[in-house]
Amino acid sequence: MRKLLVAVLTLLLVLAGCATKPAAVTDPLSSWNDTAARRNIVDFVQRVTAQGGPDFVPETERIAVFDNDGTLWPEAPLPFQLAFALDEVGARAQTDPRLASDPMVQAAIKGDVAALLAGDRHDGLMHVLGLTHTGMTTDEFDQQVGDWLATAKHPRFGRPYDQLTYQPQQELLKYLRANGFRTYIVSGGGADFMRVFSERVYGIPPEQVVGSTGTVRFEMRDGKPVLVKTADYVFVDDKEGKPAGIHEFIARRPILAVGNSDGDQAMLEYTTVANPRPSLGVLIHHTDAEREYAYDADPPASGRLVTALQEAPTAGWTVVDMKNDWNAVFAMP
Amino acid sequence: MRKLLVAVLTLLLVLAGCATKPAAVTDPLSSWNDTAARRNIVDFVQRVTAQGGPDFVPETERIAVFDNDGTLWPEAPLPFQLAFALDEVGARAQTDPRLASDPMVQAAIKGDVAALLAGDRHDGLMHVLGLTHTGMTTDEFDQQVGDWLATAKHPRFGRPYDQLTYQPQQELLKYLRANGFRTYIVSGGGADFMRVFSERVYGIPPEQVVGSTGTVRFEMRDGKPVLVKTADYVFVDDKEGKPAGIHEFIARRPILAVGNSDGDQAMLEYTTVANPRPSLGVLIHHTDAEREYAYDADPPASGRLVTALQEAPTAGWTVVDMKNDWNAVFAMP
Repeated sequence: MRKLLVAVLTLLLVLAGCATKPAAVTDPLSSWNDTAARRNIVDFVQRVTAQGGPDFVPETERIAVFDNDGTLWPEAPLPFQLAFALDEVGARAQTDPRLASDPMVQAAIKGDVAALLAGDRHDGLMHVLGLTHTGMTTDEFDQQVGDWLATAKHPRFGRPYDQLTYQPQQELLKYLRANGFRTYIVSGGGADFMRVFSERVYGIPPEQVVGSTGTVRFEMRDGKPVLVKTADYVFVDDKEGKPAGIHEFIARRPILAVGNSDGDQAMLEYTTVANPRPSLGVLIHHTDAEREYAYDADPPASGRLVTALQEAPTAGWTVVDMKNDWNAVFAMP
Repeated sequence: MRKLLVAVLTLLLVLAGCATKPAAVTDPLSSWNDTAARRNIVDFVQRVTAQGGPDFVPETERIAVFDNDGTLWPEAPLPFQLAFALDEVGARAQTDPRLASDPMVQAAIKGDVAALLAGDRHDGLMHVLGLTHTGMTTDEFDQQVGDWLATAKHPRFGRPYDQLTYQPQQELLKYLRANGFRTYIVSGGGADFMRVFSERVYGIPPEQVVGSTGTVRFEMRDGKPVLVKTADYVFVDDKEGKPAGIHEFIARRPILAVGNSDGDQAMLEYTTVANPRPSLGVLIHHTDAEREYAYDADPPASGRLVTALQEAPTAGWTVVDMKNDWNAVFAMP
């Protein structure tokens, strides 16, 4: 009878989820080689989650911010959002003669990025971004981005763009969330663009995506409320804009920041310099021309990494060498 | 022996938190009288949380947005943030002769709100808001707001401003959260101002506060990163700005919106008109001059309620009559 009692009790406790399950043997960071980069990250997470330890950080303050282009997925040969814009004007020009005669649209169709980037203010690029990112409702824009993701393929890897996320970073996002972190994207890319896929692709809900934004205009159309995308004011979530965006949207100082370019330097400084809490800065260094791309001072399009790399040793930032620290690059769909 | 087994099992299940506890007898909305307003709210919450029911809404989409001034706490005789600004310039003028000689600061000290509001763009008010809301770091501003809340008292009720929240609304916020809603503030007030106290006072964390914002500028000062408050661009989260703010910050359409003025009308429309999900709009009507204030078309300072009240019957919004629907007004500290 006692045996029966014990057995029933054990069964009940297990059913109630109260008994300790056998520890999972799978490595949550299996695409990370056992190098200093991985050890720094794991050590940091263990320290801030050790209840009662000197570096413990409560869950509400465990904010991790990730750049997107070049940090969670590639930014070559062009940032993916720019590829969307070029594809989109190209497609529209086929049925719109006025658009087809626009010199900057022609440059976009030819892939003449130099012409688009000419001038201090990159007027050509801004013009194409305006054509593809303003004037429509937010629902229409979501649809356009969704359609593009479903059809377009990366010129080198031949896969849909949203199937080119970095496997080690997917593991890192999950590992952090499993340890009570809230994971945010803080990117120079458009918030509306990223929010179309962030939850499905990264497990990051739209309200945890901070990005560049244009104001939207509220209107009633045929008795239905819509939001029309405008460029009346554009907030650029890059460089010094990243700490500003973090303040506006997250309203807490992060304790972990991951980026890959000088555009992320201010965000890493805001996260790690004179932060009263323990903190970690991580820079992804693109060193793997074979599996992905190799660049720093002279990137294919965006993602110049010079000053942030110089600051890394003194600031104590962890530099991830993609070639040596990652044993896999792309997540398999 | 069987009795013992049952007793032990029951005990274990209770300890494991798996057995049904006796239903709590306390009414979560005890400050709401049993009137149509309360019944509409409870009915809505029951419908959207009924798993398998036709109106079920998953938790991630259960977004409730609340205006603050006049909805969660009073806005008379002045919006509390304006009282902060007037107190603050008054205090500073005592040690700053240049400030003391400023005509608009003098108007502020005299409480001459008409002078501050004169002109289409309320230049005087904007000037005083600029003096009290820009130029300092975000940490300095937080400190100033915190100090003011700790010392200032409401002229009529004689209590600290943050001890004047509405008890029925505090109950509603908790009731919604207990039913899987995420509660947000969406207010014309400053996000930085409200975030100082939102978590402590309302249980709403800073990242769930949407409000008016000025851009902040990232700087390194003495080797430490700071954010300086500016008015380089100001986003006004009022009227048509509220749906825009919701899109930028929450990135989902709410299913419940609570406001009290025409400034909330667009937010209620965005929430309830042609929303594919079940939705509810609620307007708080200030009808209780004895316990609080009575106004609509002609408010003491802010909170004009005319067009939204006209739209309420056709839009199906619930109008809360403070005098008759609430049996208590202020939360006791």
